[in-house]
Amino acid sequence: MKENFLLKSENAAALYREAARDLPIIDYHNHLSVSDIKKDKKYEDLCELWLASDPYKHRLMRIMGIDEHFITGQASPREKLRKYCEAFPYLAGTPVYDWSRMELFRIFGIEQTPSKENADYIFDKALEMLRSPEFSARGILSRFSIEKQFPVAALTDELTDFGGDLAPSLRADALLSPTEELRHTISERSGIPITDTDSYIAAIAKILDAFDQKGCRFADHALDAGFFDGASEEQMEILIRLGGEYAKRGWTLLLHMDAKRKTSPRLARIAGPAGGYAAVGGDLNISALADMLGRVEEKEGLPSTVLFPLNQSDFAPISVLQGSFPCVQLGAAWWWCDHAMGIRHALDCTASYGVLSRFIGMTTDSRSILSFVRHDYFRRILCSYLDEKNERDEWGLSYEMLADILRGICYENAKKRIQ
Amino acid sequence: MKENFLLKSENAAALYREAARDLPIIDYHNHLSVSDIKKDKKYEDLCELWLASDPYKHRLMRIMGIDEHFITGQASPREKLRKYCEAFPYLAGTPVYDWSRMELFRIFGIEQTPSKENADYIFDKALEMLRSPEFSARGILSRFSIEKQFPVAALTDELTDFGGDLAPSLRADALLSPTEELRHTISERSGIPITDTDSYIAAIAKILDAFDQKGCRFADHALDAGFFDGASEEQMEILIRLGGEYAKRGWTLLLHMDAKRKTSPRLARIAGPAGGYAAVGGDLNISALADMLGRVEEKEGLPSTVLFPLNQSDFAPISVLQGSFPCVQLGAAWWWCDHAMGIRHALDCTASYGVLSRFIGMTTDSRSILSFVRHDYFRRILCSYLDEKNERDEWGLSYEMLADILRGICYENAKKRIQ
Amino acid sequence: MKENFLLKSENAAALYREAARDLPIIDYHNHLSVSDIKKDKKYEDLCELWLASDPYKHRLMRIMGIDEHFITGQASPREKLRKYCEAFPYLAGTPVYDWSRMELFRIFGIEQTPSKENADYIFDKALEMLRSPEFSARGILSRFSIEKQFPVAALTDELTDFGGDLAPSLRADALLSPTEELRHTISERSGIPITDTDSYIAAIAKILDAFDQKGCRFADHALDAGFFDGASEEQMEILIRLGGEYAKRGWTLLLHMDAKRKTSPRLARIAGPAGGYAAVGGDLNISALADMLGRVEEKEGLPSTVLFPLNQSDFAPISVLQGSFPCVQLGAAWWWCDHAMGIRHALDCTASYGVLSRFIGMTTDSRSILSFVRHDYFRRILCSYLDEKNERDEWGLSYEMLADILRGICYENAKKRIQ
Repeated sequence: MKENFLLKSENAAALYREAARDLPIIDYHNHLSVSDIKKDKKYEDLCELWLASDPYKHRLMRIMGIDEHFITGQASPREKLRKYCEAFPYLAGTPVYDWSRMELFRIFGIEQTPSKENADYIFDKALEMLRSPEFSARGILSRFSIEKQFPVAALTDELTDFGGDLAPSLRADALLSPTEELRHTISERSGIPITDTDSYIAAIAKILDAFDQKGCRFADHALDAGFFDGASEEQMEILIRLGGEYAKRGWTLLLHMDAKRKTSPRLARIAGPAGGYAAVGGDLNISALADMLGRVEEKEGLPSTVLFPLNQSDFAPISVLQGSFPCVQLGAAWWWCDHAMGIRHALDCTASYGVLSRFIGMTTDSRSILSFVRHDYFRRILCSYLDEKNERDEWGLSYEMLADILRGICYENAKKRIQ
Repeated sequence: MKENFLLKSENAAALYREAARDLPIIDYHNHLSVSDIKKDKKYEDLCELWLASDPYKHRLMRIMGIDEHFITGQASPREKLRKYCEAFPYLAGTPVYDWSRMELFRIFGIEQTPSKENADYIFDKALEMLRSPEFSARGILSRFSIEKQFPVAALTDELTDFGGDLAPSLRADALLSPTEELRHTISERSGIPITDTDSYIAAIAKILDAFDQKGCRFADHALDAGFFDGASEEQMEILIRLGGEYAKRGWTLLLHMDAKRKTSPRLARIAGPAGGYAAVGGDLNISALADMLGRVEEKEGLPSTVLFPLNQSDFAPISVLQGSFPCVQLGAAWWWCDHAMGIRHALDCTASYGVLSRFIGMTTDSRSILSFVRHDYFRRILCSYLDEKNERDEWGLSYEMLADILRGICYENAKKRIQ
Repeated sequence: MKENFLLKSENAAALYREAARDLPIIDYHNHLSVSDIKKDKKYEDLCELWLASDPYKHRLMRIMGIDEHFITGQASPREKLRKYCEAFPYLAGTPVYDWSRMELFRIFGIEQTPSKENADYIFDKALEMLRSPEFSARGILSRFSIEKQFPVAALTDELTDFGGDLAPSLRADALLSPTEELRHTISERSGIPITDTDSYIAAIAKILDAFDQKGCRFADHALDAGFFDGASEEQMEILIRLGGEYAKRGWTLLLHMDAKRKTSPRLARIAGPAGGYAAVGGDLNISALADMLGRVEEKEGLPSTVLFPLNQSDFAPISVLQGSFPCVQLGAAWWWCDHAMGIRHALDCTASYGVLSRFIGMTTDSRSILSFVRHDYFRRILCSYLDEKNERDEWGLSYEMLADILRGICYENAKKRIQ
């Protein structure tokens, strides 16, 4: 792994070195375990840290035909790692191939590309390092210059572990179709009896204040495949009212759209609900999305909103919405789209249909503390992208101006939303 | 702005210089004010000419967070221009960034990229020039070698201002759902009582003859988002019958599809119906479109037809229709798609799924007399595209053959439709 | 046509020469006439072999405005060929342009690009060669190193002509909506009375065994535009049950999706049902497809499945399904998508959303014995693609490893399915 990995010109490398590499990270949406960080979790071995809990890697191992025994089954950590390393060279082209190499190099100084031959070496070298206190959860995190990160918390979660550089971001999915139990808990926490939508929103709003005090600035709704065609008027009403609450507090609304989480019944049984087998619905109703944004704007005032479609074919029409609602934009390429092609296409669409310099930049959306290398991945691709566009499309921007736009995308545009 | 802007090789530059740059322009669909041209309008300042009436620029200023006071509000022309110039370097990547630079350079000889620093200089330099008679509407138009342009006119518009290089193109949107008033006017003009669809079409046909005598060769229908799923059988019937009328006269039918014009209620109030905030519906029913074309063909004979989808993801399947209906083709990248990425994708799709050498080429579809630089923009991109394909994909075409195809796309394919 | 056609670097050329060019061909789905091969058909002239039966070329000739007289009409073979050659340089950019040149060069040693000037030369030169016994159907096929090919056969077809390197692949379209006649024939052949779905499937299963004994390893279903929205529960049930039958036999299921075969009534009359005027439905229901795969998996066990969508905008979300169902993958760019852009996009999507090294590779799906050059076309593009990715995206793979992946995609991944 070379120092200039993915930096395709001298100028791109200079931009990276001087204006991007050392910028702090604001990771505005992820799924890290705050309690693991608080208690400074130690990792048994590389399998636990790197493989056992990573559905992206499980997904690829399955595609490679590896028996489930070596993925989520009873095989030993070393055996599992061997299987992954053996398959590894055949994963070239996947983003996980790039991330894996970056993670090994950045955290463990391992320069080799994993393979059958070096699997044991990698396992042993990592094992030795993981035994040292520097490789605890917090030790690993300290290797990235994270200014602030926002792991998700449900409205009913305790926020005691948050603080310092850890602020909550609200995972609000359950709120649109509340169970009796959820309504009860929200009512208890807020001290507000819930009898109708007004009181339901009022009760939520009180807890939002507590989130706000803990530094929350982002609320996320997963609008899965079919949402806009299947949502009841009551769900829409709640979403619209919540949008207004977020807007009042200056929060940013994140909409993760078009995931189809139910696919293989077999994998659902083996791997659980987040087991890496989700698909793309592929029929996002962009017109209904625009109508919904219009209703929030009209009724409540629209919060700053970032849209994460899961089908790259929607990046173009979604980017156009920035002109309809100037506080709305396409987000960084998300989940299965989070690879060099997806990143470049999101940049292209934002540049061509919206305004690239306003782009909020990367967030990991990850369950793994190693995933912060993805900010580095994004920044390298972005540096090459900006330099290439400036040259090929003859923007005529000075190095300083390019660096200014670059800093905005990597850091400052997100920073403005948390101040 | 260099002479070889966007020309990526010696050969591309030669093609441009020798076979494309000086070709006349046939702008087969735009929204220029014919009366402004007739009366040879003078412009107060650069803001009036360049900014105040351009929804593309307003849209970007809003995305940049500029207060509406400086966009459509009461700020002075100089203040508005300052705001635009200040934001300008941050607009790199948008097509408006390229067009703006080309317009300033081509018309006013201004080579600087607009910025905070040179805003007043640009305003003052343009002001001085706009006071000279050469910079009237007709003066500016004379700087482009326009052989013929086709501003839109509604069926009920007077055509007295048309003539010479100004022929009308029919804007036929209102005809599918005629108001009582429209039916009445059409009946009066044509002298034909309207009692049913047959007489309605007959009355229209009589006025079409008047358009035809004024040189009209194009009829445009905007089939907005949801059209194919919501159209009544009567609307379809009218569209199909009109298609037959266009075919009889040798006109070309333009279908602009999938615009979603109602988005932000706030911007609708501020900026009016064409205020630059339209979105993409994103769910164009290509199968229903093909069925409609089949019905026109079967019932009436299909006119030469150019399809303008607003979602670049539809360029590929739309291009395939050229094989189903040889007189149908994808049009130049339209509206929000009219940028380097969109242009190249339209060329790629036409080349791969249809036949590129038959491509009808660029039209501005614009409200601004400066927009003719977009023909130059398109031609530069096309020259580089053709040369690159010939080299990389090893077509093995001679320079003369490439130039022949180039001239067809830039000029001759459109020319054939107006003869 | 140069030896290094489409090979964009020294390394790509070496990969091609040493690891791809001479690999045997497994053409796992095509529409060749087995009886023509068996009887070793002779061709009257180049028009019969190359033009008269090729709807791809007819389609382009129509787009070029050539009169139907010279396409499917009464013009002489020489006249038809002249018209095609005259139009030929204007077809640059289409895949047929590349294929045509490769076919002329590979089979007839003709290096010239067809044109008005050399049409007669080409006709005469080919005529002379076609009179020699080496240019019979089998003679031509022997010029490609075909290890095995799988022309389609309907369930009720006789399989007597199959054998050797010719194995049947099942064309199963008619089975979902069986006519009375079809049910009767299946019942007779199988000796099983058909009274309900169970007995219908049992009867089919018995004939599948006969196909299996003839070497059949692939079953194809065309799920045309609108299938998932219009299929009856009974059709779904049959498809799911058949999926289980294919899985039991270790066959691979091919799904060709989203074709819209009814477009122009005029061309349907002139050119018949497969006349080259089909379109893309453009509204593939990916969510319903995933649900169907889940039902097969749950009820019957899912066979290895290759998905062929006809809209390149669906390549990305379709590729994601490989993670939901590891035995499912995107197939090679199909029909109208089978060109350099489509091939590269299929590779990109498989690499980014699935695993490229598992890609099953090319099949011609063609009615012409000359189409085997498309394997060469695919291999050249793939060699350049792999080398470019390894360099630009800095995979860091050795030449040997790249060659290993290359061989898998060109040959071994298909080979595994027929053993």
